[in-house]
Amino acid sequence: MFRHVVLLEFDDTTTDEHIEHVVTQLHALPAALPVLRSYIVGRDLGLAPGNAHLAVIAEFDDIDGYIAYRDDPTHRRIIDESIVPHLRSRTASQFHDDQDG
Amino acid sequence: MFRHVVLLEFDDTTTDEHIEHVVTQLHALPAALPVLRSYIVGRDLGLAPGNAHLAVIAEFDDIDGYIAYRDDPTHRRIIDESIVPHLRSRTASQFHDDQDG
Repeated sequence: MFRHVVLLEFDDTTTDEHIEHVVTQLHALPAALPVLRSYIVGRDLGLAPGNAHLAVIAEFDDIDGYIAYRDDPTHRRIIDESIVPHLRSRTASQFHDDQDG
Repeated sequence: MFRHVVLLEFDDTTTDEHIEHVVTQLHALPAALPVLRSYIVGRDLGLAPGNAHLAVIAEFDDIDGYIAYRDDPTHRRIIDESIVPHLRSRTASQFHDDQDG
C-alpha cells in the first residue's frame, strides 16, 4: 500500500464555510479517481494548539496511482483555486505502509 | 473512528539510523497499548522537496483511546528522549473519520 498524507493550515481569513467547501470538493474525487483505494478527509477537532485544520489520508495500490491523483486536473483545480489562496502552511509525506514494506 | 495524524521533520544532524530507531520504538507501542486500533508509521520516500521525514497515523475507537496513547509514559519517553531533541518541526491533527461522523 502506498500512502499520501497532507496536513493543511489555512490563514486567519479563511471561513469555516470555505473549509467545508474544500472538504466537499475533495470528497467528490474518489468517485472520479478509482486509483484512490481509500480517501479520508478530516477536519481538526481543535484539541491541541497549533494543529493543522485539515488532514487528508489517501491510499493507492502503488506510486502510479498517487501520481495520477496528484496530477489529476480536477484535483489540481481544487488545490489552485480553493486551497493555495487560503493556505498558511502545508506539510506532506508519501510512504509505503510499514506493514507491507 | 478517531484518528490522530502527525508529520515530523527532523533537523539536519539527525541520522538515518536514528530515524530508524524512532520507528522501531514506535512500532513497539501497539503491543502495549490495545487502545491503538491501527498504527501506521511511515518513512517518507523523498518524492517531493519539503516533505516531512516521518508520518504516524493512529486510529482509536474514541478520544479516550487517543488520550491514553498521548499520555502513555513509554510513548512520552520516546517523544522526549528520541524525537524532541532532533525535531525541526511537527504538525498534527486529530479528527473523526468523515465516513462515520
